[in-house]
Amino acid sequence: MGRNKSTDLPKIAGVKFITAQAGIKYQGREDVFFAAFDPKTVVAGVFTKSKCPSAAVDWCRDNLSNKIARGLVVNSGNANAFTGSKGKKAVELTAKIAADALGCKANEVYIASTGVIGEPLDAEKFRSVLGAGVANMRSQPWINPAKTIMTTDTYPKLVSKKVEIDGVEITINGIAKGAGMIAPDMATMLSFIFTDMAIEADVLQALLAQHVENSFNSITVDSDTSTSDSVMVFATGQAGGARLNRVSDIADERAKLFGKALGEVLFDLAMQVVRDGEGATKFVKITVCGGQSDASAKKIAFAIANSPLVKTAIAGQDANWGRVVMAVGKAGEPADRDSLSISFGDFLVAENGEVALDYCEERAAKYMKNYEIELKVDVGIGGGQAIVYTCDLTHEYISINADYRS
Amino acid sequence: MGRNKSTDLPKIAGVKFITAQAGIKYQGREDVFFAAFDPKTVVAGVFTKSKCPSAAVDWCRDNLSNKIARGLVVNSGNANAFTGSKGKKAVELTAKIAADALGCKANEVYIASTGVIGEPLDAEKFRSVLGAGVANMRSQPWINPAKTIMTTDTYPKLVSKKVEIDGVEITINGIAKGAGMIAPDMATMLSFIFTDMAIEADVLQALLAQHVENSFNSITVDSDTSTSDSVMVFATGQAGGARLNRVSDIADERAKLFGKALGEVLFDLAMQVVRDGEGATKFVKITVCGGQSDASAKKIAFAIANSPLVKTAIAGQDANWGRVVMAVGKAGEPADRDSLSISFGDFLVAENGEVALDYCEERAAKYMKNYEIELKVDVGIGGGQAIVYTCDLTHEYISINADYRS
Repeated sequence: MGRNKSTDLPKIAGVKFITAQAGIKYQGREDVFFAAFDPKTVVAGVFTKSKCPSAAVDWCRDNLSNKIARGLVVNSGNANAFTGSKGKKAVELTAKIAADALGCKANEVYIASTGVIGEPLDAEKFRSVLGAGVANMRSQPWINPAKTIMTTDTYPKLVSKKVEIDGVEITINGIAKGAGMIAPDMATMLSFIFTDMAIEADVLQALLAQHVENSFNSITVDSDTSTSDSVMVFATGQAGGARLNRVSDIADERAKLFGKALGEVLFDLAMQVVRDGEGATKFVKITVCGGQSDASAKKIAFAIANSPLVKTAIAGQDANWGRVVMAVGKAGEPADRDSLSISFGDFLVAENGEVALDYCEERAAKYMKNYEIELKVDVGIGGGQAIVYTCDLTHEYISINADYRS
Repeated sequence: MGRNKSTDLPKIAGVKFITAQAGIKYQGREDVFFAAFDPKTVVAGVFTKSKCPSAAVDWCRDNLSNKIARGLVVNSGNANAFTGSKGKKAVELTAKIAADALGCKANEVYIASTGVIGEPLDAEKFRSVLGAGVANMRSQPWINPAKTIMTTDTYPKLVSKKVEIDGVEITINGIAKGAGMIAPDMATMLSFIFTDMAIEADVLQALLAQHVENSFNSITVDSDTSTSDSVMVFATGQAGGARLNRVSDIADERAKLFGKALGEVLFDLAMQVVRDGEGATKFVKITVCGGQSDASAKKIAFAIANSPLVKTAIAGQDANWGRVVMAVGKAGEPADRDSLSISFGDFLVAENGEVALDYCEERAAKYMKNYEIELKVDVGIGGGQAIVYTCDLTHEYISINADYRS
């Protein structure tokens, strides 16, 4: 299920980085990703809606209004979440160490941490690797940061898209990590996007907020929402030798072109994350139509996607549409039981509130053996639609999560 | 984990029943419980909040306003849910068959079904067993109906309480089934309470609604809500030779006395259900205090109780309070991260938003080996409190639910 990239992602003018071993938790693998951005690089970010966000999320959210990013420090192994005043100090120290190394202000440094919650993070461990790292920064290979930020991921997640705007080729690179604890509302664990696009921070922020909705905010592995979920985009403005005028209006045609490509990058990464859901053996696409509104349809789609009974049925290759009905019912959103229809792939299994006349258990059972399962539900109320993506719930999920800390 | 009752529940004056094999789905076991109530027996009921309720739930809800119950028919093996107009007709036929047998009106017969969803229920199968059954009805043993309504339950659930009101001994018997609880296809939560209390239907309804809140509405196995969940109370009014005046006012001291005993019956059955959660190896009590309101505290408690990551950690005997923080955060309710405190049993593991100073992993790990786990969370906002009960999420849950229909 992993992705083998034979070629690396392209360079992004204005972005350099290193990866290193700071010894935060893991032994014998890199655990820090340190990136430097040329002056005038703008930043946008969306973060977890958790009421108990990590110290790093607080820090990034507070600094976003400055619009400028000169550095990014990401570590794996320790989430620095629920670490109280120690956590806040660790973030401040990390930013200061990075800023000193880069020669910028501390509030121009963005930070993300992933790993175990509740254990103090010793930011002093960053001092030597960040200090020494600046001199060795390179523009490639991108596989290194993608690997460095992994925790329970089984493969690194990265993607690149190009789009031509006003005759200038724009590159967008993205990396992500995920696996567990993925639910809507800034569900990804962590994702970082780098582009040479010339764009104002406000427009970038608006485009990110718009396109995260159908990508990272439309996936779920287990309904659990991290304290640390962050998606940040860094735009250097150096495409084509910086000869592109900065896009400063969301209504600008160039904003739409760029937004579309950005959306594709976000969507691709989100799909990589859900395919790597902890213990996943199936990729599941759930389409709900006939909802009272799009939001209502999305709530129903997530009720299906997060139902342990639906997820275990899919793991068991069982076209158990009765559980889908149950999940529609529990969503609490308007649904017309007696005109409800449900399809697995192209097989209509239920219509008008009961099993379809030509339903064939054998054909449905055969379909359920596929790796990609598509579930379509028409709730028979209105024109609202939504698509969400998830995976199944397996023994392996239990094994991974019953033993994670030990 | 089961309960061995050496003695049967007492008789309830005005209640007789049989159990029988109608051959709905199971072979070689009883699958129909048919009870008859003397005239003037009143009924109260609370039902699933599912937007796709079963035909039986629709039927019972519609008839509740008549206040009188003369019969109850419960079958296991088929939930008669999502069966369209066939399902409605099956319920109507069942009621008619029972009413003919009992010599009452069809709308005085209450019905519940549990088992597979989406398969038409052949109510004709009830005709001979209900017709012949009336002559053989008895007042005991209660273990029979408790067993008859089981699906994936590993033990029958029943309880009895007595309370003296105005010098008259009142008896309340209850039976329940659950297990996967609240899962269509297999496990709906059903509970039936029988009492000789003399009480008006409206008061009984109010007391049931009140006491279901801290019992059946405070438990969760897997967050999934059945299309068929039903709790009904039948009160014959024959206690002490029917010499008790009917309680007609909720403010009556006797209503409080009875309500307390009813609440104890509901609570006991709810605990039996959660202890028998599918695949459960732990019983978990989650107390949330410091919430903005009781409702807010309950929402947080359920977010913790339903979190797959919290439930798998408990299965793994891991005092992973970081996941508890995550679950508090994802509830979306007000919580003060920096004054949050968490205890596992009597062990304070986190306070003031970080790990407790004297936290000892070894002691916590030892505590987590217990069968009963208590988790206390103070979210540091206000005076709102709630307690919910759940079980862990294990490999066995996956095995049961990935293979149920096959």
